[in-house]
Amino acid sequence: MDTDRVTSQIFSPDVQQPLDLFGIFVFALSGGLLAVRKNMDIFGICVLAEATALGGGVMRDLLIGAVPPVAFTNLGYFLTPLVAGLVVFFLHPEVERINRAVQTLDALGLGLFCVTGTAKAHDYGLGSVASVALGMLTAAGGGVIRDVLAQDPPALLRWDREIYAVPALVGATMVAVLIALDDLTTFTASSAAMIAFVLRMLALRYGWRAPRAWHRNGSRTSEE
Amino acid sequence: MDTDRVTSQIFSPDVQQPLDLFGIFVFALSGGLLAVRKNMDIFGICVLAEATALGGGVMRDLLIGAVPPVAFTNLGYFLTPLVAGLVVFFLHPEVERINRAVQTLDALGLGLFCVTGTAKAHDYGLGSVASVALGMLTAAGGGVIRDVLAQDPPALLRWDREIYAVPALVGATMVAVLIALDDLTTFTASSAAMIAFVLRMLALRYGWRAPRAWHRNGSRTSEE
Amino acid sequence: MDTDRVTSQIFSPDVQQPLDLFGIFVFALSGGLLAVRKNMDIFGICVLAEATALGGGVMRDLLIGAVPPVAFTNLGYFLTPLVAGLVVFFLHPEVERINRAVQTLDALGLGLFCVTGTAKAHDYGLGSVASVALGMLTAAGGGVIRDVLAQDPPALLRWDREIYAVPALVGATMVAVLIALDDLTTFTASSAAMIAFVLRMLALRYGWRAPRAWHRNGSRTSEE
Repeated sequence: MDTDRVTSQIFSPDVQQPLDLFGIFVFALSGGLLAVRKNMDIFGICVLAEATALGGGVMRDLLIGAVPPVAFTNLGYFLTPLVAGLVVFFLHPEVERINRAVQTLDALGLGLFCVTGTAKAHDYGLGSVASVALGMLTAAGGGVIRDVLAQDPPALLRWDREIYAVPALVGATMVAVLIALDDLTTFTASSAAMIAFVLRMLALRYGWRAPRAWHRNGSRTSEE
Repeated sequence: MDTDRVTSQIFSPDVQQPLDLFGIFVFALSGGLLAVRKNMDIFGICVLAEATALGGGVMRDLLIGAVPPVAFTNLGYFLTPLVAGLVVFFLHPEVERINRAVQTLDALGLGLFCVTGTAKAHDYGLGSVASVALGMLTAAGGGVIRDVLAQDPPALLRWDREIYAVPALVGATMVAVLIALDDLTTFTASSAAMIAFVLRMLALRYGWRAPRAWHRNGSRTSEE
Repeated sequence: MDTDRVTSQIFSPDVQQPLDLFGIFVFALSGGLLAVRKNMDIFGICVLAEATALGGGVMRDLLIGAVPPVAFTNLGYFLTPLVAGLVVFFLHPEVERINRAVQTLDALGLGLFCVTGTAKAHDYGLGSVASVALGMLTAAGGGVIRDVLAQDPPALLRWDREIYAVPALVGATMVAVLIALDDLTTFTASSAAMIAFVLRMLALRYGWRAPRAWHRNGSRTSEE
């Protein structure tokens, strides 16, 4: 696990691929739904679905030098968000109605991608801290691109949204520790993903939010 | 055409370079004009001209691993947007007045870049679908960066703007099909570019817009 | 200095590293402070500190093909913005109070990074003009990312902010000329950085602004 470019075979390929496509699909749904709320047309919906689903992984691949990014070499990765975009286009009221289910699926995607993103960064020779950062980028980067393109304040950065970064941080850190202990297996990696998932679900359930800066009630904060 | 890194010589180099510079110039004009409307200073005008003109190609080059991007190795590519920025700085009322002509030139740039972008991506070994996506990114990516930097909703994504993605999609797809048929020549590539151009002009002329999501008249859409 | 990949040893490594970390720290402070003003939580503060401090250098490294970017291989580069984020989180009223001092430090960072960014781009084989552009990107790119993420109009592009691009342009151009003259030494490079610093300080002191487009008082400018 510590030589150059060893693939961390967390899951066997015929499990990894469906898992990835599942995560990409649910991330794409969140992009498509925001596009509908922003009154975009069918192309806006598909572009936002693609950017949300693939943006985090593409940025990770660019940063670790894995070009062309897997999103452009694996046809399934590219086509899945289009399918999600079409689903949203035709069925968005139904998709909105099961928004709670979508959030649950999104949390599963979060858990999956923070784990696989961290492992892939390590495979390309990055250190533990950088791998954790790239794991978080894989899981949360697409959502930031989605919000920037749709001109929403990035949900990741807002204090009034349930925490998203912490579950990703915990899952990614667990993977980095498991790699350091030479103990990254399908079981331990899945456990890390599940813990990130559960943390995110608890955050949604109980409205966990992160603290804002201390003494914010001074006169310098321009927007309340 | 299917070995690694064969350059698709669509146009002879002494034709390609002037065409590229022409497309870069007109894209830069659209960036500079938005900067003026947004009340930016001379540096804002030049930065937005550069970002609009080169942004799509730079993103394509990063994604296919062609670094440093051609925009940073070919001096003409870099200096042309500065010239366009200065033209806008000194003559923006005149440039605005010929806005219809600028839109026509922009449509020519759109046709050119969706064709050359798709061919370049294929030259770097990407598959047909990914090449089409990167051709569209080459043609439309700079405009998205322009709008994000200027804090405008990306025109590409807005339902109330004439379609921009469809002409690029058609032109890029034609190139991918021509490559698959081993029939990409100066004539066929130019035809693809002209078809994209004509589609865009028709969209502008007749106000073609893409559909928004079905059943949008529900209560969930937050912005009308 | 004109062979491939010679490292421009402007400063000895044990001087370069502390200088870089200093510049990263002060850039991160500006990101963190904007995050507080935007009412972000602790994670938003740290993300914006990281993006502001490292964004320019990461974009430069991606464009010249230096992957993974140094920000992901040098642990100190990554951790320093987190420290700055925590400082802002706990002490932001105090940091705001010394805002003039922060602006001075930021100007030092500007001078440093436009010089080292230009030299690094040249080391990777880019031409003079492209190296100057990448030096400016290194110095100013993080601030643009900061503003885009925080949904502020990029300060770099606004006419009503003191000039930031000109000092970076002057410093970067001096370095490119010094390299062309084969005269880039610790002394001359430091002089270029100091000149950029002094220009920025003068701009702040005397409110230097760049001109907007001519004849703007026409009816076409939508925002005054």
